Amino acid sequence: MRNTTIDQWYTDLASASPAPGGGAAAGMSAAMGAALVSMVCNLTIGKPKYAEHEEIAREVLAAAESARNDAQRLAEDDETAFNGVIAAYKMPKDTDEEKAARTDAVQKGLVQAAETPLAVCEVAARIIKLAGRIMNHSNPNVVSDVAVAASAARSALESAALNVDINLASIKSADERERIASEMNESLQTKVQAEAIIVAVTRRIKS
Amino acid sequence: MRNTTIDQWYTDLASASPAPGGGAAAGMSAAMGAALVSMVCNLTIGKPKYAEHEEIAREVLAAAESARNDAQRLAEDDETAFNGVIAAYKMPKDTDEEKAARTDAVQKGLVQAAETPLAVCEVAARIIKLAGRIMNHSNPNVVSDVAVAASAARSALESAALNVDINLASIKSADERERIASEMNESLQTKVQAEAIIVAVTRRIKS
Repeated sequence: MRNTTIDQWYTDLASASPAPGGGAAAGMSAAMGAALVSMVCNLTIGKPKYAEHEEIAREVLAAAESARNDAQRLAEDDETAFNGVIAAYKMPKDTDEEKAARTDAVQKGLVQAAETPLAVCEVAARIIKLAGRIMNHSNPNVVSDVAVAASAARSALESAALNVDINLASIKSADERERIASEMNESLQTKVQAEAIIVAVTRRIKS
Repeated sequence: MRNTTIDQWYTDLASASPAPGGGAAAGMSAAMGAALVSMVCNLTIGKPKYAEHEEIAREVLAAAESARNDAQRLAEDDETAFNGVIAAYKMPKDTDEEKAARTDAVQKGLVQAAETPLAVCEVAARIIKLAGRIMNHSNPNVVSDVAVAASAARSALESAALNVDINLASIKSADERERIASEMNESLQTKVQAEAIIVAVTRRIKS
């Protein structure tokens, strides 16, 4: 996927093949947000004018690069996890033993398929926090890109949450459901921070 | 850009080069939203089970494909428009004549640079409306992708609006400012519809 051209990726996304779909798109939005945080840091680092922000910009850059790498990997994983559930549903169900094995495989596949968007939620939350950290320490000429990064990460977060919810609805284990929902809700709390960044930057641009 | 690999595009976005930046990212989010609307239509069309939705799905598909093409073109244009402003600022300003010519070129460049994100706002608004049209006529297995499409298009809309605002702040003609702001505000009204789609789909998934 990383070596696919942009044109081809959008064509694959638009096609009747269910993967890549919304889950992979969430990962791609997160990667875009992380890349924009990196750009803001790269346009701040090494300029004498912003020397006081150098240290924090270097820290945020390293974290954003790591988040981008995670997000791209998760966009790829999403396809694999999805295929796992499909394969489990196609298992034979003629005997009671086969039925039990199939149910077990489907349940494991669903938990696995939920883990990937759950991890995208976590990465997106990290990116929103990084945008918040760099907002008051960036080259002011690119402050709008901090807000675009927060917007892309928020979209990644809410898109991934939808994909977690789909899998949650079919997971039978109450313990697993509770653990997944609790982790997701922790990430979802950063949506408010993303909104605050976008509002603050918009005000700064208009003033 | 269309033939750039995904890996390379994110690397270019993250680099210290100011373009591609938030403007191009807004175009890419819009293209992603449009591609997901197309996917939903493609997974609805031709299935006897959804025959009653066939006609509307075909209509929405054609419009989504056109929107995706527009969004990708605008992501590319953003870079060019940005370069135009930079070139104008670099014009000589030694004589009064040179100063006047430079000011004129900068102002034209700024209006041009605002037109591109303004057009992204318009395309993003179209994609949100398409997501709204297909929401109750889609294969229900991919209804989450309708919400992901709306989320990506909303992010494109708010990101492009930030880029319009940046240029607006430097445009001297009150007439141009008013025309641009008025067109942008019309597109921004669809943000509420995007939010409504996301909420409705989330409820449907959880019920």
